[in-house]
Amino acid sequence: MEIGEIGEIDLIDKIARETKIDRTVIKGIGDDTAVLKYSNKEYLLFTTDMLLEGVHFTHLRPRGASKVRLFYNIGWKSLACSISDIAAMGGIPQYCLVSLGLPPNLELDSLKQLYSGIKTIARKFKINVVGGDTIKSRRLIINIALLGRVLKEKLVLRSGAKKGDAILVTGSLGEAILGKHLAFTPLEKFLTRSKRGIHNVGECSKYSLTGFTPRLKEAQYLVNNFKIHSMIDISDGLILDLWRILKQSGKGAKIFLEKIPISAVAKRGKNGLKKALYGGEDFELLFTASKRTAQKIAAQKLARIIGEINDRRNIIESSDGRKLRINGYRHF
Amino acid sequence: MEIGEIGEIDLIDKIARETKIDRTVIKGIGDDTAVLKYSNKEYLLFTTDMLLEGVHFTHLRPRGASKVRLFYNIGWKSLACSISDIAAMGGIPQYCLVSLGLPPNLELDSLKQLYSGIKTIARKFKINVVGGDTIKSRRLIINIALLGRVLKEKLVLRSGAKKGDAILVTGSLGEAILGKHLAFTPLEKFLTRSKRGIHNVGECSKYSLTGFTPRLKEAQYLVNNFKIHSMIDISDGLILDLWRILKQSGKGAKIFLEKIPISAVAKRGKNGLKKALYGGEDFELLFTASKRTAQKIAAQKLARIIGEINDRRNIIESSDGRKLRINGYRHF
Repeated sequence: MEIGEIGEIDLIDKIARETKIDRTVIKGIGDDTAVLKYSNKEYLLFTTDMLLEGVHFTHLRPRGASKVRLFYNIGWKSLACSISDIAAMGGIPQYCLVSLGLPPNLELDSLKQLYSGIKTIARKFKINVVGGDTIKSRRLIINIALLGRVLKEKLVLRSGAKKGDAILVTGSLGEAILGKHLAFTPLEKFLTRSKRGIHNVGECSKYSLTGFTPRLKEAQYLVNNFKIHSMIDISDGLILDLWRILKQSGKGAKIFLEKIPISAVAKRGKNGLKKALYGGEDFELLFTASKRTAQKIAAQKLARIIGEINDRRNIIESSDGRKLRINGYRHF
Repeated sequence: MEIGEIGEIDLIDKIARETKIDRTVIKGIGDDTAVLKYSNKEYLLFTTDMLLEGVHFTHLRPRGASKVRLFYNIGWKSLACSISDIAAMGGIPQYCLVSLGLPPNLELDSLKQLYSGIKTIARKFKINVVGGDTIKSRRLIINIALLGRVLKEKLVLRSGAKKGDAILVTGSLGEAILGKHLAFTPLEKFLTRSKRGIHNVGECSKYSLTGFTPRLKEAQYLVNNFKIHSMIDISDGLILDLWRILKQSGKGAKIFLEKIPISAVAKRGKNGLKKALYGGEDFELLFTASKRTAQKIAAQKLARIIGEINDRRNIIESSDGRKLRINGYRHF
């Protein structure tokens, strides 16, 4: 049997399940980030993300200045994804290794811009880029390994959601899928260029080269000022990432659909709510806390209450009791 | 300009040079492994390796049992390379993240064997596999991120070679390039299968799927019992890896060609010495120590003295004063 036929990412997860040798592993596979013993006060956080041309971005090769920003954005995004993972655990990223598979026909300027994107976000978030590996590849590959730390009492896992918790989300959703987060490459320009023969634009706009800013500051403020029970960053859509919290916590959820913060841009188009629920790549924080805490957070306009945790294991329903379809980005 | 035209890996290294934010980075780019502040007694070691189908191995798709061992070996090798890096710093590997790019037509059995290879070597070296990332890819990609630690006084860098040091090497060289390290897939079988239409065998035997055992035990014995000045694992050939020590140390070397330990298998064929000098993938330890220390090490048959460090910056010469060509594996 070929793995493409299985269609269940769970099976692959099962094969890949951790090999835990000792008790210094606090949390291995299950959250995106491993939690490791460090000092009396802190844990180490260890995460990795692989991005591949044609899946997470499309290796556009137009001539001219716009391309430069594209590679800058690819570099920025590749590290931003991992920062977002560590932020959602309540942690602070510190050290980064960058593995690159580079096509020999990649332009030197593009490579420089790729590194520029990586280094700019690294500096912004005070991350040391300490090395990596560079190999030749037909398609562009970027793998980031990121190491951070978290105060033991600030660690937030996916598995901590409690019955009766409010579900909250920062910012607004549904925009990234439209490519509107292409901070340095507005969608309009992007589409114009696409008419001049750039391949695979659909894919590129779906998994958009978001120049997004990981919610590290916001996550730190939350864990430093409130008791957060569970948290995740929305990489694959609100519903799918909420389901991950539910699965790890053994819980269910009721969602107040009318409370979902749909971005202005997504609202203007068709299916705004759908984009906000299933769009992905928003990289906002999705988290749960007691109702009392949630009300304080909402009062400070740090996040919006969009639902409630219950006991109906792995089920997500709307206020009127309709079950919501759980799907989104799948690897296979 | 395209990066394939540059032909100088140094330029890429320059672009990729570290972004060091704070003083907790003891050693960033330069050695294969970053050295980071950890506790009063220890440093963290942080390294990554990317392996790609068609470059580091060939994704063979024959039917039958032999294939299983091939994927087992790919898994084993991918982690072995990183363990070897940490061993050569005097460190002990502890935590590993595995990123995989998987072709949808990869057989489930092959994937299981790939993980089996990774897990077997992980258990053997007491490494916790704590997570990773899995994406769809046209070609098989494996990225390993490995975290370890080292006692501060045992840390060995490439940059520590001193004038007058003896140069030593463990084991024997020149075998890996012949594919003889394919512990589970003897070369004969491998070549027989190749005649039945497996592509790219030359490449596969060059960058062989060595079932090699990283010299962790040996490295630990060396750093625990002797003062080692500089060390590297031979991944790209004795000469190229020696040159890396010289470059980082600002030194030169004289090599006693008659003392190079050529493996019995390499000796039997043509150009045994050449294979031993330039072959690569032997993953033996190449290191320097004072002459007095070196003699003790040699007397215990832990390694052989094969040369001497001098002041002739970046130059490697033989005993009769001939300059040795410095080349080997290049990424581009």
